[in-house]
Amino acid sequence: MTNSEKAYQDLCQLSRRAKILEGISHLLEWDQETCMPKAASPIRAEQLQIIAGLIHRQKTGKPFADALSKLVDLKTGSVKQDGLKPEQKAALKRWHKDYKMQTSLPSAFVEQFAKVTSEAHLVWDRAKKQNDFASFLPTLKKVIDLNKQKAEYFGYSDHPYDALLDIYEPEMTKKEVEKVFSSLKKSIMELLGRIQKAKQIDDSKLQLRYPPSLQLSFGNKLAKMIGYTDERGRLDLSTHPFSSASHPTDSRITTRIIPNLPISNIRSILHECGHAFYEMGLPEQHYGTPLGESVSLGVHESQSRWWETRIGLSKGFWKFLMPHMKKHFKGKLDGIKLETLWKGVNKVEPSLIRVEADEVSYALHVILRFELEVALIEGSLSPKDLPEAWNQKMEELLGIVPKTDSQGCLQDIHWSMGAFGYFPTYALGNLYASQFFEAFEKAHPDWENLVEKGEFEFIKKWLTDNIHVHGRRYSSRELLKKVSGKAFTSEPFESYLNNKYSKIYIGSLPRKGQFRP
Amino acid sequence: MTNSEKAYQDLCQLSRRAKILEGISHLLEWDQETCMPKAASPIRAEQLQIIAGLIHRQKTGKPFADALSKLVDLKTGSVKQDGLKPEQKAALKRWHKDYKMQTSLPSAFVEQFAKVTSEAHLVWDRAKKQNDFASFLPTLKKVIDLNKQKAEYFGYSDHPYDALLDIYEPEMTKKEVEKVFSSLKKSIMELLGRIQKAKQIDDSKLQLRYPPSLQLSFGNKLAKMIGYTDERGRLDLSTHPFSSASHPTDSRITTRIIPNLPISNIRSILHECGHAFYEMGLPEQHYGTPLGESVSLGVHESQSRWWETRIGLSKGFWKFLMPHMKKHFKGKLDGIKLETLWKGVNKVEPSLIRVEADEVSYALHVILRFELEVALIEGSLSPKDLPEAWNQKMEELLGIVPKTDSQGCLQDIHWSMGAFGYFPTYALGNLYASQFFEAFEKAHPDWENLVEKGEFEFIKKWLTDNIHVHGRRYSSRELLKKVSGKAFTSEPFESYLNNKYSKIYIGSLPRKGQFRP
Repeated sequence: MTNSEKAYQDLCQLSRRAKILEGISHLLEWDQETCMPKAASPIRAEQLQIIAGLIHRQKTGKPFADALSKLVDLKTGSVKQDGLKPEQKAALKRWHKDYKMQTSLPSAFVEQFAKVTSEAHLVWDRAKKQNDFASFLPTLKKVIDLNKQKAEYFGYSDHPYDALLDIYEPEMTKKEVEKVFSSLKKSIMELLGRIQKAKQIDDSKLQLRYPPSLQLSFGNKLAKMIGYTDERGRLDLSTHPFSSASHPTDSRITTRIIPNLPISNIRSILHECGHAFYEMGLPEQHYGTPLGESVSLGVHESQSRWWETRIGLSKGFWKFLMPHMKKHFKGKLDGIKLETLWKGVNKVEPSLIRVEADEVSYALHVILRFELEVALIEGSLSPKDLPEAWNQKMEELLGIVPKTDSQGCLQDIHWSMGAFGYFPTYALGNLYASQFFEAFEKAHPDWENLVEKGEFEFIKKWLTDNIHVHGRRYSSRELLKKVSGKAFTSEPFESYLNNKYSKIYIGSLPRKGQFRP
Repeated sequence: MTNSEKAYQDLCQLSRRAKILEGISHLLEWDQETCMPKAASPIRAEQLQIIAGLIHRQKTGKPFADALSKLVDLKTGSVKQDGLKPEQKAALKRWHKDYKMQTSLPSAFVEQFAKVTSEAHLVWDRAKKQNDFASFLPTLKKVIDLNKQKAEYFGYSDHPYDALLDIYEPEMTKKEVEKVFSSLKKSIMELLGRIQKAKQIDDSKLQLRYPPSLQLSFGNKLAKMIGYTDERGRLDLSTHPFSSASHPTDSRITTRIIPNLPISNIRSILHECGHAFYEMGLPEQHYGTPLGESVSLGVHESQSRWWETRIGLSKGFWKFLMPHMKKHFKGKLDGIKLETLWKGVNKVEPSLIRVEADEVSYALHVILRFELEVALIEGSLSPKDLPEAWNQKMEELLGIVPKTDSQGCLQDIHWSMGAFGYFPTYALGNLYASQFFEAFEKAHPDWENLVEKGEFEFIKKWLTDNIHVHGRRYSSRELLKKVSGKAFTSEPFESYLNNKYSKIYIGSLPRKGQFRP
């Protein structure tokens, strides 16, 4: 073994240990949401805090710094050793970036951030329940100030928001997001306008009661049919659906059951399976290194939205699923036609709540939050004016206005968690998914016919071979380029929406360029 | 705060951190047996190994040693500081003992022990499946040698077995165990002889199929009825029932369902609830110190056997339970009388397998193992002669001989885990329970009437007030003395068995002293 190989191996070992501790932390969190007795909340918080401390020390302590500095100049990030493979050099770049981020925040700041956001969560929760924005305002101000400070600690060249966005979507910038969101906004608003003028979809026949236990067993069946196996995963119930992986061999999902809305469970299962497949598809031999990690929240979301929307809202999928549903929910779907079912699950109807939004209007909810948080961070919007700004934007983008702040600017948990810069990744996920999907469709033009027959393995394989296998070797932008041959663009997503929903609502395809001046 | 108080607080802090890490380890193990996807076994082993290393370091590292040495002379164990409360001094004694044990094994030895026993488990598992003792023999020899070495490292004054027993049942000695076991053996064998001559119990009417899902929901109901709540616990399924606590607020249990043996589930629930109640009853304010820990495996087992046998096999309990069972298992118990049911669950029938043994013959299985492992450790029995020695003792004690080693000396997992000295605690648990129970009966002579009415809270309260509340302040022997006023004795257990089973089988009480020459 050469010196550089040895140094690389040493680094892998130290990094693997941190990753294992992170896996333990994920399990503790998973248990907290699925199994833990209520009274154990305080001790669980202590357990998580201790593990978080251990992870931080493992990633920033002297042993790690020494091992990293043998391979990389800690100041500049340039690789010092010859004889490393290109993917190893890429891994070193990520390690170095993580190390810089982890060490750029003074521990007093980290502690204060944790303290304020932990309190903020409780204050927000109460404020939302009591529809009392004023009571959340002082805390929100603190959280915003801390995020501004955080941006300064991390550093940025153009805009402080870049530093925050970079936490969740590395190497993406506010400017680039603005550019694609601006195009997207125009396109979706036009489409929504056309949809509103068209004949609305009647999904009243689908609103029956589907017993929760039957829904859960159907969820298990569905997960299995698309290739999510008990061997490496499991399905549980939780208040909010989520996925949690501690290793490619242990990637779990949860769902939520709403008795008269079976589609909610089905979409959750597909969404979380998408996340779980990504974690299962990461190369095990690189576990503990950046080459065994996911790229970003945006790419993660592209995987979940891929299964939830691109596959799970397609006609082929519902042609496949309908007979299974009819059989499982005996009698419930008698007399319902495929067209009714498929159009029902694709009904577009602007709503106040992001997580309940349809596929078309969803991105507008995200764009609204993005624009507001940029303004809050740069200071062009004062926190006290947030409710008004929120309502104005809702009116402008979706044509509806919430009656309460609980249904408006207090609806999401993210800001109370201190997570500014997170929201854009939800929409980026949709855009990435569509850009990847164009490449996938070229490789598998008959995909929908196969899905109709219940074949899904080739989809998983394509995603693993083209996306998962690289771990964090490429940034999201590099990966998009590599997979699709094109730079990041919102065009594939816009075309997809326009084509699909023109067909559904207007009954014909739009003429090319008709909706994009 | 005085210097000694400050030093004591510092020690508590360090110790609490170790305890929290242990709680995390327990959760990982619980998850492994109840929820974990199969493929995650290797990564879970790594997770557990890392946590085990952290615990060891926390308990033996310089910060802990420094903090402890401010209060205690590390060599002699004598307390150096004035002004500490008696219970704090008791805690220091335990901390010192633990520290001595933790540090007396060289790390090379610890590693080898872990390696050999980890392999031994696989070898044993295969040998048991294939009924091939010869294939296990070389590994068994290694495990025995390592245990002999371990005893030397720990040190002992009389017999090497004392050092091993002390791991699981602190301050108990081989000599004392021998004394009580010898009396117990005689007493039980006499009773068994009389039972065998009496009319046997016919429990064929009880052997119906009880649907697993109904059994599980009944298990949940039963746990709730005796005061085990979701607030601090939960019930799951596992291959072997167990309990697992990471804090008094998180004390979980599992059960196993055998369709035609509903009593198995009921006994498991009661047994594991007994363990769980102990952990829930430990004083939360002392969590992380010896005053918040259980005394020993024997005392723990006394709590589980208390609920499983002393309460759960009493007539009053079955008078309470029968209507609930009849209602829950609609029709299954129609026409069955209380007497039939109660006698059925108390049927005595010597069997080859310890974990399936009835209340009377159970201790003989333990005594057999105790005698054999003492002989193996002192060298008076050669490992190669184990199968023959086992079968001889089975013949002598229970009058039956296994046809295969799988049903004989290969049946238990313990030796493959390297756990010599563990078995006696199973029988000690029964003896302790009965000695405690005498005191309980004095305080609550009407307990069986209350149980009949479904009242259990007073039992939990008595156990918490008299046993749980002390944590590890007293050794098991001291605790027995404190609670019952008497030194450790097998007499209460022997009387209990003689009285109860004379009534069941012979229909009358034995004359006093009749069976104890």
